[in-house]
Amino acid sequence: MSGHPSLSVPPEGEFFRSRWVEAPEGISFNPDGTLPEGFRAGGVHCGLKGGGATDLGAVICESEEVASAILLTANAAAAAPIRVCRENLWQGEIRSVIVNSGNANAATGEQGITDALSMRNSLATELGLAPQTVAVAETGVIGVPMDMDAVLSGISGLASSLTTDGAVAFSEAIMTTDKWPKRVSLTVDGITLSAQAKGAGMIEPGFATMLCFVQTDAVVPDPEGALRQAVGGSFERITVDGQMSTNDTVLLQASGISGRELPEGLLDSVLLQLALEIVSDGEGASRVGRVEVTGAADSAEAEMVARKIANSPLVKTALLGRDPNWGRIAQAAGQALAGQDIGELGPEVIEAGDIAAGGREPELALRLDRGNASAHVFTSDLTHEYIVINAEYTT
Amino acid sequence: MSGHPSLSVPPEGEFFRSRWVEAPEGISFNPDGTLPEGFRAGGVHCGLKGGGATDLGAVICESEEVASAILLTANAAAAAPIRVCRENLWQGEIRSVIVNSGNANAATGEQGITDALSMRNSLATELGLAPQTVAVAETGVIGVPMDMDAVLSGISGLASSLTTDGAVAFSEAIMTTDKWPKRVSLTVDGITLSAQAKGAGMIEPGFATMLCFVQTDAVVPDPEGALRQAVGGSFERITVDGQMSTNDTVLLQASGISGRELPEGLLDSVLLQLALEIVSDGEGASRVGRVEVTGAADSAEAEMVARKIANSPLVKTALLGRDPNWGRIAQAAGQALAGQDIGELGPEVIEAGDIAAGGREPELALRLDRGNASAHVFTSDLTHEYIVINAEYTT
Repeated sequence: MSGHPSLSVPPEGEFFRSRWVEAPEGISFNPDGTLPEGFRAGGVHCGLKGGGATDLGAVICESEEVASAILLTANAAAAAPIRVCRENLWQGEIRSVIVNSGNANAATGEQGITDALSMRNSLATELGLAPQTVAVAETGVIGVPMDMDAVLSGISGLASSLTTDGAVAFSEAIMTTDKWPKRVSLTVDGITLSAQAKGAGMIEPGFATMLCFVQTDAVVPDPEGALRQAVGGSFERITVDGQMSTNDTVLLQASGISGRELPEGLLDSVLLQLALEIVSDGEGASRVGRVEVTGAADSAEAEMVARKIANSPLVKTALLGRDPNWGRIAQAAGQALAGQDIGELGPEVIEAGDIAAGGREPELALRLDRGNASAHVFTSDLTHEYIVINAEYTT
Repeated sequence: MSGHPSLSVPPEGEFFRSRWVEAPEGISFNPDGTLPEGFRAGGVHCGLKGGGATDLGAVICESEEVASAILLTANAAAAAPIRVCRENLWQGEIRSVIVNSGNANAATGEQGITDALSMRNSLATELGLAPQTVAVAETGVIGVPMDMDAVLSGISGLASSLTTDGAVAFSEAIMTTDKWPKRVSLTVDGITLSAQAKGAGMIEPGFATMLCFVQTDAVVPDPEGALRQAVGGSFERITVDGQMSTNDTVLLQASGISGRELPEGLLDSVLLQLALEIVSDGEGASRVGRVEVTGAADSAEAEMVARKIANSPLVKTALLGRDPNWGRIAQAAGQALAGQDIGELGPEVIEAGDIAAGGREPELALRLDRGNASAHVFTSDLTHEYIVINAEYTT
């Protein structure tokens, strides 16, 4: 998962737009990297990625009154930074985060833990923070020891270069196989919310993001509750290749400086925007389908069936081939409910026409007759480029 | 899943060979289509496939003393022939089977059931058998009504053309995206065992074959037990794309004419041979990996982890790219056991070198430290041809 050499832009121009994201009325998303009051960020090149690409970034909240929450991958073979964040972090008081791309520091054993702690300690020292208030996130190749000389000398330069307009550099520093940097900012009623994320392979909920960092100057009384709800409706709804990463991390930091509460729905919209950007920029993706299952016995069943359809390579290649092959949707649903009998699903309960007729974002739907529960999942198509990226790139 | 226009041969020549199949000592497998005493078979072109390819086949056991067993897909959206076999078959007394390729008769509603029954009744009449002793199996495109005029007129010609050397034609008549016909015969100690199978997409246990038909003149006291055991070690051990078909069927028929019992292990070897042939001829497959997981807490866990690794598109593209990327094996195992902690798996417990160094059949192994259970799964690589077949072919 080495970095693409040059930045690209989202489909349809400078700023990513999806039919499935609506900004709350009167508010517009923008990609300029505006940070809320009380935050600085930045990104530098330390040498983990080639070609001078930025590969080390940080965000700091100036306020000691920060409210924060962090969600970490459930992968049983979690990477060193995940273990450090699980065990050594004051999760409600995260002032800063240090992030590198180019090396996931996963499957690196005890040395990996030592290295992740050392990154954390180094940034904490530079910024004058308690080490337990600094999170670590890493992404890139698995199983390769960290080049700590590069990282540690990078951190000292990075710490002194954090600025209020550094979110652009930060969003670029966290990219791996992403084609374009993913960031969004919005301002409404005196508060600002901003977020930066990266995809693009090993995307599958559990929860399932890759990395995402969110900042606001609003007051967030229950940051963990707010973050779990927003992640449940966004990063947990996407899949690229059904693979849960060893390094997934989502961090929310609220400085509270505006003195106003975060309006309902804002965080949800922002994370959905970034989640759709991630799946749209999934490895090799050319189209994104929204798979909806209704009429399931319960929500767990609805979700399981939707995921089975969304992860079927037959459905994903049909998406690429613009083949409205509802038989493959029936087959996947039947597999999800193996051992039961849901009859022979036919075109009267499966909507697949959008696969042929739709644009970049087609909708697929299956109506079961087992209850009233529903669920949806966003999935990318399976393309030749996915194979090129994963079979032919050096990892 | 329309048929390939021309037959090919297995890798490495006329007869498929795998490093993982050993014929019992002194016995050789052959592909000549020898049928055991008491069986006739055949295949004709009725018009479901284009280009004059054979697409309709049948097998009959002449003996009224037949002992039989049939295993059917667990897919909850099972096809019409599966429903007919489940509900209308004397499963221990199956004298004959009618099989078509080119149309799966799946997701075809009530008409599909009527059509499958009509195929069964037609062959039963032609052969003078009770309808409940005739099985039906179908494979091909999903969701398209059967051309019953073609099928029924085909059946009358087929019934009169069944011969003792008809297994070659039968094995060709059941092919869809298979590149070569899959059949094996062996004779030992006065008994003969033969089998014919077809793959090649929607392969994943549950159990999971596509279609396989087995005949012997040996005595098989417990055909269902023998078949379940052999399927458990063969078709249930393979995956191509993790997709359970709506039509999977395995049928065993024993005429008993030899008067001798089937020696232990023969059926297991024959089905393993065909299972490996199916995965080797999986859609787009160029290599087959054997994924072994040891040290699991119990056999269900071992199997789940092995399957997660075997179905990971990252592992499957690494197989194609000859990339000994053990990090992807660690990631998949960690996902299989999500929510638990298995530490950071490293190269000391993962053998992936064969991915780079090995030939057509590399071995991958993961050693867990949770108990003494083990499991293995055979998986194909994910290639450009898989995408071509599934995105660009008309289905």
